Amino acid sequence: KERWLTPLLAGQIRSAYLMTEPDVASSDATNIAMSCLREGDEYVLNGEKWWATGAGDPRCSIYIVMVRTGGEDTPRHQRHSMILVPADTPGVEVLRAMEVYGHDDAPHGHMHIRLSDVRVPADNLILGEGRGFEIAQGRLGPGRIHHCMRAIGQAEAALETMCRRSLTREAFGKPLARLGANYDHIAEARMAIEQARLLCLKAAWMMDRGDARAAAPWIHQIKVVAPNMALMVTDMAVQMFGAEGVSQDTGLAKQWTHLRTLRLADGPDAVHRRQIARMELRKYTQERV
Amino acid sequence: KERWLTPLLAGQIRSAYLMTEPDVASSDATNIAMSCLREGDEYVLNGEKWWATGAGDPRCSIYIVMVRTGGEDTPRHQRHSMILVPADTPGVEVLRAMEVYGHDDAPHGHMHIRLSDVRVPADNLILGEGRGFEIAQGRLGPGRIHHCMRAIGQAEAALETMCRRSLTREAFGKPLARLGANYDHIAEARMAIEQARLLCLKAAWMMDRGDARAAAPWIHQIKVVAPNMALMVTDMAVQMFGAEGVSQDTGLAKQWTHLRTLRLADGPDAVHRRQIARMELRKYTQERV
Amino acid sequence: KERWLTPLLAGQIRSAYLMTEPDVASSDATNIAMSCLREGDEYVLNGEKWWATGAGDPRCSIYIVMVRTGGEDTPRHQRHSMILVPADTPGVEVLRAMEVYGHDDAPHGHMHIRLSDVRVPADNLILGEGRGFEIAQGRLGPGRIHHCMRAIGQAEAALETMCRRSLTREAFGKPLARLGANYDHIAEARMAIEQARLLCLKAAWMMDRGDARAAAPWIHQIKVVAPNMALMVTDMAVQMFGAEGVSQDTGLAKQWTHLRTLRLADGPDAVHRRQIARMELRKYTQERV
Amino acid sequence: KERWLTPLLAGQIRSAYLMTEPDVASSDATNIAMSCLREGDEYVLNGEKWWATGAGDPRCSIYIVMVRTGGEDTPRHQRHSMILVPADTPGVEVLRAMEVYGHDDAPHGHMHIRLSDVRVPADNLILGEGRGFEIAQGRLGPGRIHHCMRAIGQAEAALETMCRRSLTREAFGKPLARLGANYDHIAEARMAIEQARLLCLKAAWMMDRGDARAAAPWIHQIKVVAPNMALMVTDMAVQMFGAEGVSQDTGLAKQWTHLRTLRLADGPDAVHRRQIARMELRKYTQERV
Ligand SMILES: Cc1cc2nc3c(=O)[nH]c(=O)nc-3n(C[C@H](O)[C@H](O)[C@H](O)COP(=O)(O)OP(=O)(O)OC[C@H]3O[C@@H](n4cnc5c(N)ncnc54)[C@H](O)[C@@H]3O)c2cc1C
Ligand SMILES: Cc1cc2nc3c(=O)[nH]c(=O)nc-3n(C[C@H](O)[C@H](O)[C@H](O)COP(=O)(O)OP(=O)(O)OC[C@H]3O[C@@H](n4cnc5c(N)ncnc54)[C@H](O)[C@@H]3O)c2cc1C
Ligand SMILES: Cc1cc2nc3c(=O)[nH]c(=O)nc-3n(C[C@H](O)[C@H](O)[C@H](O)COP(=O)(O)OP(=O)(O)OC[C@H]3O[C@@H](n4cnc5c(N)ncnc54)[C@H](O)[C@@H]3O)c2cc1C
Ligand SMILES: Cc1cc2nc3c(=O)[nH]c(=O)nc-3n(C[C@H](O)[C@H](O)[C@H](O)COP(=O)(O)OP(=O)(O)OC[C@H]3O[C@@H](n4cnc5c(N)ncnc54)[C@H](O)[C@@H]3O)c2cc1C
Repeated sequence: KERWLTPLLAGQIRSAYLMTEPDVASSDATNIAMSCLREGDEYVLNGEKWWATGAGDPRCSIYIVMVRTGGEDTPRHQRHSMILVPADTPGVEVLRAMEVYGHDDAPHGHMHIRLSDVRVPADNLILGEGRGFEIAQGRLGPGRIHHCMRAIGQAEAALETMCRRSLTREAFGKPLARLGANYDHIAEARMAIEQARLLCLKAAWMMDRGDARAAAPWIHQIKVVAPNMALMVTDMAVQMFGAEGVSQDTGLAKQWTHLRTLRLADGPDAVHRRQIARMELRKYTQERV
Repeated sequence: KERWLTPLLAGQIRSAYLMTEPDVASSDATNIAMSCLREGDEYVLNGEKWWATGAGDPRCSIYIVMVRTGGEDTPRHQRHSMILVPADTPGVEVLRAMEVYGHDDAPHGHMHIRLSDVRVPADNLILGEGRGFEIAQGRLGPGRIHHCMRAIGQAEAALETMCRRSLTREAFGKPLARLGANYDHIAEARMAIEQARLLCLKAAWMMDRGDARAAAPWIHQIKVVAPNMALMVTDMAVQMFGAEGVSQDTGLAKQWTHLRTLRLADGPDAVHRRQIARMELRKYTQERV
Repeated sequence: KERWLTPLLAGQIRSAYLMTEPDVASSDATNIAMSCLREGDEYVLNGEKWWATGAGDPRCSIYIVMVRTGGEDTPRHQRHSMILVPADTPGVEVLRAMEVYGHDDAPHGHMHIRLSDVRVPADNLILGEGRGFEIAQGRLGPGRIHHCMRAIGQAEAALETMCRRSLTREAFGKPLARLGANYDHIAEARMAIEQARLLCLKAAWMMDRGDARAAAPWIHQIKVVAPNMALMVTDMAVQMFGAEGVSQDTGLAKQWTHLRTLRLADGPDAVHRRQIARMELRKYTQERV
Repeated sequence: KERWLTPLLAGQIRSAYLMTEPDVASSDATNIAMSCLREGDEYVLNGEKWWATGAGDPRCSIYIVMVRTGGEDTPRHQRHSMILVPADTPGVEVLRAMEVYGHDDAPHGHMHIRLSDVRVPADNLILGEGRGFEIAQGRLGPGRIHHCMRAIGQAEAALETMCRRSLTREAFGKPLARLGANYDHIAEARMAIEQARLLCLKAAWMMDRGDARAAAPWIHQIKVVAPNMALMVTDMAVQMFGAEGVSQDTGLAKQWTHLRTLRLADGPDAVHRRQIARMELRKYTQERV
């Protein structure tokens, strides 16, 4: 692992994380199906992955791949493993870039990749067979908070730009701010941002205290709240800018399409809501919920 | 003032605050019209007030009344004064109790009161003519936070009762919790409560730091957020209880009607939203907004 | 049945429908548990019912009671029957009136009734054992449309009263109509009413064509749409009236509490939504959904 | 006009409509500022237009341009005129294509066009100076209904694709349809589509009866309802498809960006809501609202 970690941390190379597969509903990670069979001191991988963010970057030279190593007899959460696959291994084929509302996010990219009889040394398997979930769990919290913080910052910027626009542009003899429900929209945006920010700070603070499990309810909550709030505020700003809002002349339209993916990436809203509800219900029952 | 303040603080008597009038839109307090004319060393009051909370209580012996003392030539925010009127002054007539969704909240009560040629000593006027608004401003912050905290507590209780019900009652072969969108409703409630709580704590903390003006944006925000959130959560709980939810058998229906008044009392939502928007816009303009 | 039907139609007596029971989730009617055992040429009933609308009326002399006649071995939808119970049968005990947000709707009333060893002739059982559901299905469509039409009418009246108020009452130097988001609220109300009305007309028209099964999707839809829309519009009107809106001086508060029960009576929203979704999905699958 | 109308109707050439200008809030068409001065038997035009849909098409050879011909002394709604400008007139400069969430909609295109001392014969002015608004009014109704019908069709298609996906894709051991709030989302979509469709039919029927003025309330209503509904349903479908929903593999993401512009083109939501409210209020007052 030294071979990859040192240049990664030095920023000389990049990695991509390959979990999601086109053929299975990947919000349920136990569905992940890429086959990974041991042959001597190698593993042989076959299957397709997509939405490998960063795999389009020419500096991206290593993939962390979630694969299925266990069979039906293995417990559901111990069937998967993570394994390192160098990007230039024979059998790796980058098929295309996935687009987000028409943007391919080049050169960074979200790549659709096929692995055909890709062979890597058995050593590349991280921690041991069946520990894929364990590893995945560990890295999600901080990443999510980071994305949420950025979403909140983008919402804040959208509100500012919307306020400025509403003060300078005039229609029907008044600045837009004074027309119709615009005061209410601005107030609505402010209240939503403020609440999301405080929730995010609480989640981060819980995380900082070191107990990821205790912090989980807040992580799930902010993962739902922040993207939805930021989408609402950004869309309000788009509307206040009229046709310019949907165009290339403000960053708002682009910002919206990016934010929209946060309701899916790292788990769709529905999955997080489900977790929040289960944690809530467990306060009142010993039964499985 | 000693005559009233000491027994008030000792809890021997109660007071009521008479601002709102049936004939004018009282969300704009500059509309308050009760006449209060100086005659020698007395003031003579005429007009009607309603929604005087607590005036139905037999221990309520003193009214703090907002009256109009200035004319059109006085600046808009210096036309009003506050004056003390003992409940047993001749000319004071309690007409009836106002009802809230059918509840008269007896014995406490929200009274409709007529004042006909009510005479009080000139000394009863607090601080001086034209200072009514100044006094009103001072007392609103802490009261609002207090109401919001209680609303949040009621929402928390409603969520608990809703969770418990959803675990124990069964329909279509499953506990209600597992049916339809109920997980999502529970998650929604949790996220909304958590955010409102954090916002309320922030408002209280700002207030505690002593600068009411600096705290104002958060006071206005929580005054909108908390009642609306608590109404939503309480209504969800009502729905989860089925017909029992609207009945006398849980406190939920009653709680809802009480919470509903918080969207009006101490200023309707719309007025607070307007203030929030104005404070936001003032960051970007020197003009009056 | 002649004994009851003729005076019922002549308006000399009234009936009440007793299905819902306090101890079971009655939105799933297969839960109904009131025991009804054959003894000779009589049936003996035991159990409690509540929310028997109209049973408080002194003219109410006959109950139509949903009971359980079949055991676990009978198919789920053939376990129940309907049976006529004269209100004055020994063993019938009206315990109390259920309240709706504090209103007991007297003298009409929604009664909580206990039946202890109540004996009625075997003839009183309608159509035959196990046909309770069949009978219940038949009567729901028209009743639901009727309630929805009334809800739409009430929403229309609320919008009118809200518009009138917004034109005559002034705050901040303008009629309320011109303040903040009020134009938008009025527009929102109009669009919602108009759409609900058209949907209700379509449901009624489908019903009129005679095929209740074909009309079902629209009945379920309007049963969800109309009460929710009417609640929203009524609540907007309450807010526009300020404190008067929650009081006894307009009918709005009362109207709201009545409308609120329509989200529960004749099946809660969630159950109707579920039916709508299932009918939608069946267009694309042969499987049970 | 024969010179242009005949080939237009024959489909040999295309036209574009140039009203919107970058520098003024064009939702208020009285803001339109492009100067158009009479010099002898010509008009000279100067200014910029953008969002001229179709002007990117090579067959587009004629522009219908809204210009300002009247001064401050002319009544507000008689200051503007429409004039024909051949695309190849000297001084016409197509600056760039405006993008919609990153799509330039080529070859059709929404062009940003500068007119510098563009001279056209005085005859090209349609109907006479000051009649621009009159002409604009006439053409909007049918166009709007057409766009709304298409939006409703797109929503219907999105719901179908969402249902199919929800039946075939599995997560957590069940088809997506059976997870969480998905039944409710499907029901919500169905109810919203159904209502919008009926409203659209009513608007079209009113229009067909020939009195555009009488039809206006319904035109405004459907112009708000249809795009918002279609956006909601399309976004739900995107979510049900997971990451594939935002990608190039279904038409959903593209559909959403197109639908999003309908909340702005032909007048932003806010302007239509305002009209709806004014028409509503005029039922109860003779005053200008
Ligand atoms: C911009 C972007 C970047 C990404 N980057 C990466 C990356 O770097 N590496 C990587 O591996 N993946 C990446 N992804 C993929 C992402 O993690 C997956 O899209 C996500 O996990 C969802 O999986 P899916 O697309 O297969 O959706 P599916 O699982 O097919 O479907 C999801 C939908 O099903 C429904 N659903 C699922 N479960 C439930 C439930 N319990 N209750 C109710 N409804 C439910 C919801 O509507 C949900 O939105 C990226 C995605 C995007 C858009
Ligand atoms: C339970 C309860 C207890 C109360 N206790 C007291 C008490 O003890 N003492 C007392 O003096 N009063 C009391 N009140 C009255 C309360 O303070 C007033 O109801 C409130 O200030 C609103 O005044 P109003 O009722 O005259 O409403 P109005 O001012 O007539 O109307 C309010 C409505 O007009 C609209 N509106 C107003 N301004 C705007 C705007 N800027 N933008 C958009 N829309 C706007 C909104 O829809 C708003 O809800 C109580 C009220 C209740 C319900
Ligand atoms: C004013 C009024 C008048 C009435 N009149 C009569 C009458 O005359 N005769 C009579 O017999 N009854 C009457 N009822 C009772 C009414 O029919 C029942 O209340 C209704 O059927 C719901 O049953 P429940 O109260 O037992 O609620 P429950 O079944 O205990 O709970 C209902 C709640 O559970 C949840 N739930 C249930 N199923 C699902 C699902 N599939 N998906 C998601 N969530 C779900 C929902 O939140 C729902 O609101 C009346 C009720 C009222 C309020
Ligand atoms: C895809 C597309 C195609 C188009 N095609 C054409 C075309 O072919 N020809 C053409 O001339 N134009 C076209 N347009 C332009 C379109 O007609 C204008 O964008 C629209 O009229 C709004 O004008 P604006 O962009 O200047 O927005 P502005 O007027 O600057 O701002 C609009 C915003 O201000 C606020 N606002 C305005 N009035 C009010 C009010 N009364 N109450 C509350 N808020 C208010 C709202 O938030 C509103 O969304 C097109 C636009 C798009 C996006």
